[in-house]
Amino acid sequence: MKDYIKHNEWSIIEEGFEPEYNCISESIFSLGNGMFGQRANFEEHYSGETLQGNYVAGVYYPDKTRVGWWKNGYPEYFAKVLNASNWIGINFEFEGEMFDLHTCKVSNFRRELNMKEGWLERSFKAELPSGKQVKVAAKRICSMVKTRIGAIRYELTPLNFSGEAKITPYVDFDVMNKDSNYDEKFWIEQEKKTASDFSYVIASTKKTDFWVATAMKYNIDGAWESTGQSFNERDKYIEAVETGNLTKGQSITVFKYAANISSMNHGKNTLATVAEKEVTEAFNTGFDKLLAEHVKAWARKWEQSDITIDGDVSSQQGIRFNIFQLNQTYTGEDERLNIGPKGFTGEKYGGSTYWDTEAYCLPFYLATSDKEVARNLLLYRFKHLKKAIENAEKLGFTNGAALYPMVTMNGEECHNEWEITFEEIHRNGAIAYAIFDYINYHDDQDYLLDYGLEVLIAISRFWAQRVNWSDRKQQYVMLGVTGPNEYENNVNNNWYTSKMALWTLKYTLEGIAKNKGNKKLASLLKKVEFDEAVETAKWQDILDKMYLGYDEEKGVFLQQDGFLDKELIQTKDLAKTDRPINQKWSWDRILRSCFIKQADTLQGIYLFEDEFDLETIERNFDFYEPMTVHESSLSPCVHAILACKLGRKEKAYEMYLRTARLDLDDYNNDTEDGCHTTSMAGTWMAFVKGFAGMRVKEGQLHFNPTVPDQWGGYSFKIKFRERNLKINVKKDSVNISNESAEPISVYLFGKEHQLKANGKVIIPN
Amino acid sequence: MKDYIKHNEWSIIEEGFEPEYNCISESIFSLGNGMFGQRANFEEHYSGETLQGNYVAGVYYPDKTRVGWWKNGYPEYFAKVLNASNWIGINFEFEGEMFDLHTCKVSNFRRELNMKEGWLERSFKAELPSGKQVKVAAKRICSMVKTRIGAIRYELTPLNFSGEAKITPYVDFDVMNKDSNYDEKFWIEQEKKTASDFSYVIASTKKTDFWVATAMKYNIDGAWESTGQSFNERDKYIEAVETGNLTKGQSITVFKYAANISSMNHGKNTLATVAEKEVTEAFNTGFDKLLAEHVKAWARKWEQSDITIDGDVSSQQGIRFNIFQLNQTYTGEDERLNIGPKGFTGEKYGGSTYWDTEAYCLPFYLATSDKEVARNLLLYRFKHLKKAIENAEKLGFTNGAALYPMVTMNGEECHNEWEITFEEIHRNGAIAYAIFDYINYHDDQDYLLDYGLEVLIAISRFWAQRVNWSDRKQQYVMLGVTGPNEYENNVNNNWYTSKMALWTLKYTLEGIAKNKGNKKLASLLKKVEFDEAVETAKWQDILDKMYLGYDEEKGVFLQQDGFLDKELIQTKDLAKTDRPINQKWSWDRILRSCFIKQADTLQGIYLFEDEFDLETIERNFDFYEPMTVHESSLSPCVHAILACKLGRKEKAYEMYLRTARLDLDDYNNDTEDGCHTTSMAGTWMAFVKGFAGMRVKEGQLHFNPTVPDQWGGYSFKIKFRERNLKINVKKDSVNISNESAEPISVYLFGKEHQLKANGKVIIPN
Repeated sequence: MKDYIKHNEWSIIEEGFEPEYNCISESIFSLGNGMFGQRANFEEHYSGETLQGNYVAGVYYPDKTRVGWWKNGYPEYFAKVLNASNWIGINFEFEGEMFDLHTCKVSNFRRELNMKEGWLERSFKAELPSGKQVKVAAKRICSMVKTRIGAIRYELTPLNFSGEAKITPYVDFDVMNKDSNYDEKFWIEQEKKTASDFSYVIASTKKTDFWVATAMKYNIDGAWESTGQSFNERDKYIEAVETGNLTKGQSITVFKYAANISSMNHGKNTLATVAEKEVTEAFNTGFDKLLAEHVKAWARKWEQSDITIDGDVSSQQGIRFNIFQLNQTYTGEDERLNIGPKGFTGEKYGGSTYWDTEAYCLPFYLATSDKEVARNLLLYRFKHLKKAIENAEKLGFTNGAALYPMVTMNGEECHNEWEITFEEIHRNGAIAYAIFDYINYHDDQDYLLDYGLEVLIAISRFWAQRVNWSDRKQQYVMLGVTGPNEYENNVNNNWYTSKMALWTLKYTLEGIAKNKGNKKLASLLKKVEFDEAVETAKWQDILDKMYLGYDEEKGVFLQQDGFLDKELIQTKDLAKTDRPINQKWSWDRILRSCFIKQADTLQGIYLFEDEFDLETIERNFDFYEPMTVHESSLSPCVHAILACKLGRKEKAYEMYLRTARLDLDDYNNDTEDGCHTTSMAGTWMAFVKGFAGMRVKEGQLHFNPTVPDQWGGYSFKIKFRERNLKINVKKDSVNISNESAEPISVYLFGKEHQLKANGKVIIPN
Repeated sequence: MKDYIKHNEWSIIEEGFEPEYNCISESIFSLGNGMFGQRANFEEHYSGETLQGNYVAGVYYPDKTRVGWWKNGYPEYFAKVLNASNWIGINFEFEGEMFDLHTCKVSNFRRELNMKEGWLERSFKAELPSGKQVKVAAKRICSMVKTRIGAIRYELTPLNFSGEAKITPYVDFDVMNKDSNYDEKFWIEQEKKTASDFSYVIASTKKTDFWVATAMKYNIDGAWESTGQSFNERDKYIEAVETGNLTKGQSITVFKYAANISSMNHGKNTLATVAEKEVTEAFNTGFDKLLAEHVKAWARKWEQSDITIDGDVSSQQGIRFNIFQLNQTYTGEDERLNIGPKGFTGEKYGGSTYWDTEAYCLPFYLATSDKEVARNLLLYRFKHLKKAIENAEKLGFTNGAALYPMVTMNGEECHNEWEITFEEIHRNGAIAYAIFDYINYHDDQDYLLDYGLEVLIAISRFWAQRVNWSDRKQQYVMLGVTGPNEYENNVNNNWYTSKMALWTLKYTLEGIAKNKGNKKLASLLKKVEFDEAVETAKWQDILDKMYLGYDEEKGVFLQQDGFLDKELIQTKDLAKTDRPINQKWSWDRILRSCFIKQADTLQGIYLFEDEFDLETIERNFDFYEPMTVHESSLSPCVHAILACKLGRKEKAYEMYLRTARLDLDDYNNDTEDGCHTTSMAGTWMAFVKGFAGMRVKEGQLHFNPTVPDQWGGYSFKIKFRERNLKINVKKDSVNISNESAEPISVYLFGKEHQLKANGKVIIPN
């Protein structure tokens, strides 16, 4: 855990140059706009520790799988988000001396990520080995309006010298993924051009043949006496070298504009033209105007999704950072895109889609964006249905059963650990549940018959084949699974997975039953060759006779068969030197232990809370929570929500804190790999579903707000079925405003209140 | 399954050139002498499919581990047996045309591995692309007497041409392991020399720094008119080029002698000298005399270990092939060596030591060799005890607990699959049991206190920590293990593993108890800091309160918890297209199924048969056997032994056949990777413990012979406590001769018989 980020309500601020934290800061200070994202690398050459990273949405490379021992059914490759061109680069030489912070004495270093306005600024003084001193202030954006455009304003002042300088803006596609399995570079040059006013490189990915053009235009303002211009090229690289003279004490400003244009959105043969058009437009607009329109776009984002917290700057900064990153990562405009676990802030985990999207991210986008945004997340999976069916076939399933991949970029499975790839199948349940979640939230009933039910049927078919009849138990069982708690592998009857399976079967049967006679339904059932009598009977039989582990003595659901044979100890009794156990213990020791990586049985209780009375929830919480080590960033949010429900404010706050500032404080010592983007949505969930107790039940909005003792109060906004609501919670009152022209009724502490158009309800707490 | 090997009692014969089987034949026709081994590669250049292989005992390379997802506790490297120099190579050119069977029309091709005499011969006619025809007869040995020496006699006759030829004997260390993880070559040249009468290359292994010298001497006899000699060298390679003239119809003979000298046995700075001395001695001895003394050595081997079978040439060939390969692989002279799963016939599985040695190979060497041979196999593990303790520490065990590695070369773990590396811990039991097996067989009581007990205590300490108390069961349980049936991973309470653990604790306690007061014991207990009161009490408590799964209804031991929840189907109901399931099914499907890779519960019943009545054995056999797919070559032998015990002659014979000719008929389609050397010992076990029913109980030899209907009878020899016995079984009689000067009593069908010195017993069957 680190604490070098200054606490501030709207900005992330680093003061003082700390090279050992540079890779962490590069992650935290990342910029993105849903189309591409850029780590907070320096513009000028830097020979110190750095992870250069520019990631273009949807562009991936299928890196050949690396595995020690091959298992039948493993995928041939792992799709990786690609480290694309370095578009920010501007090198400086002063009288032949390369300007490189790694070799300088640096002072007054300050980095600020202004979340309100979406820009990154860095300023410092530096003394080069020769004694030359310069002052720099560099600001940049990834435009939220012109989403292909990045723009930089780089101001430099020679403090104690005049003389010749070289300024070299460049575009470099000769980059490598840090996680390349075979130390291979993934880009091939297709085309490049350098000219005084416009340069670009077009490169394509091996195998997948995505083409990306990165174009640049620049100009130098201020006290710059130009003496010449030349151009250099090498493989996948172009640069323009400006030579000229600097005058002591007088500033120059380099403006660099770059366009990242991908064949995802433009014909390959038009890339150069589009890139030229886009970058020229940006150049002509100029940095200040680009910034101004960008700031406005961010204001609109915040208008919809901001959360305020009174009396706790650290928490305020944390929640805004999470919201900021989520809005940078996914804007919902393109249903081919999704939310990688690191967003655009790093490469780890391949940048592909996990069940995180449905289980943790969807609620945020449901409540803070237009309905199309969440809908596009669902359509992403709908479009992958065919591949999910093929994936299941590969594993021996038939009859149109679908197993969605654990990790994917294009619908194909990428993961290659049998205990996850083949067994962590609860992901199928999360994808099914997301359909319900969306329809329940936005009341988009058409979605079920247009898209949802086809996915639900395929997943139900999977569950129906994945269980088997136990002669001994005279019940159905589900053998050989890995639940969300990945510290248990290949277990039998994981309660959560079985619960998700049953819920899917039930919801699918209901979806079919309630649309009886509907033509769309008839045509769907025909399309998927649904044998209604046989299949629905089988599903109902499973619903009637499925085994779900329950322990009468302890009154808890059993995470899996045999769980009670373990030595049941609590995390509080673990030595500090044993934590985190995933770094300190061998895998068999972890597996044999009772310790739980992330919410598992409790994840099911969270999803289906209405099925259980409060005592049941409490017994399970009190049994499982003390054994949970939360070594997944996706864990504490669920515990926070349940803790709120149980009135355990202190526990809820403790859990909330573990995710809210996870990256800002580098809690897990791994932020250098990138931010934990998907778990940021979990933090939002902990806030809105936990502290504010928001639920949608049978089409009705419910709130049960509580305020942690550490806060004065908080407010947040949600969109719900075309309404915009603002919820303002203080220690002694709750104020809900309907900021839209349609009335709505909301339940506050279980009591219904009518909110007229632009009306509000205020009740004492 | 293939059937291209001619059936012959003493020889393996291939007639006709079948390039597509060449890699298989290279494995089957391999030669070895315990010190090095050579695949049946061609001497002359061959551009077709081939796996060049010369393996020098004990020389290995720690290849950096390749793994998809790292787990805490994985080893950094996998020790691999090394493909060493090509010492057999002799290239031929006729008037500039390279002689290469891959480009020739080949006729009269015949390959013979004479097992009685231990030589490989190959003869054929070949027509080169130019139309030139030659006849070749090449014979070679890896001397069983001079165990560093390989010798070749290569006779060649130009059938339809006279003219210039080049003959190029060479030594090539520029070889690569087929299974190199990172396509790396493992050898570095240290020294080389070429001269008219003696050439060599010395190369060393990276990291491990083994040095190996390969020296050659050669001469050309017959109708060879020499015109010159020259030498070429390149990295790790030397060759001598002899130019001369051939005369049509007249033969020449090239004799090539090679010495493989390793720093395992000689100082690095003496390698060149030793190599020169050894190869010169061989050269001076000459091929015929080397062959003659080699044949004599093989006669002695057969005298001790031959098995004859009447009336079934195919079975006769099969069993001799297995005995031949075992004798080629391990001679027991060096306790640093062990038996790799492929012997010297291939590279797969790293050529390291597995539990195969103790569980399957030991009985063969116990009964067919001097007692030192088996003792050396035990000392190998004794010497690795310290590393086994370190290995356990790495996984979190304390107090001198030892976990022997799953795969090793020098005592360190090499394997990197968590479900095997950390969980297939029954291997510890096999290593403990081998100590009992040896002492029980040879009555070497000193071994226990000198070496055995130290290992047993360390293994018992491991078991005592590996179990845990289940509050729920009020018994000890063993969670998270993988039994011998690797088609179940991470299961709880694998009956076999728990049984082995209990047996170890019991045997160790007995070993301590019966030596009370012995000084050696006192000093050992002090050395290992044994807390006698506490540790023995704990072990006894586990013995008293350990959970072992048993199903009352079916009357069978439970392979593991939850086994009866599976769909219990039989292998006979599996479609042919589903077999072998490890190639046809995804891993999760295999894991969920009831199918058993290899004897697991039945392995325990085989080891501890005296604990169970015949009905219990029968119930378990009838329950588990029909679910066993025998996809490990180590499985059928155990089933064969139990089938014999149960009087199931047909089943026993079926099981026996599955291993006896496994490689000869390429039953598993993988002989090209090398022979299944360790499972060959299983075949021997199936024969001697199965058909002949041999047991050693409380120091007494027992036989319960039966003759499969397909055979007229059989005979075999064993060494038992300084006696040599010959057992001759016919359908109507059993004849046991004591071919030694000491009397002995044996039990035949449960009845004791006294055999005087050189006496015999004959009883009607």
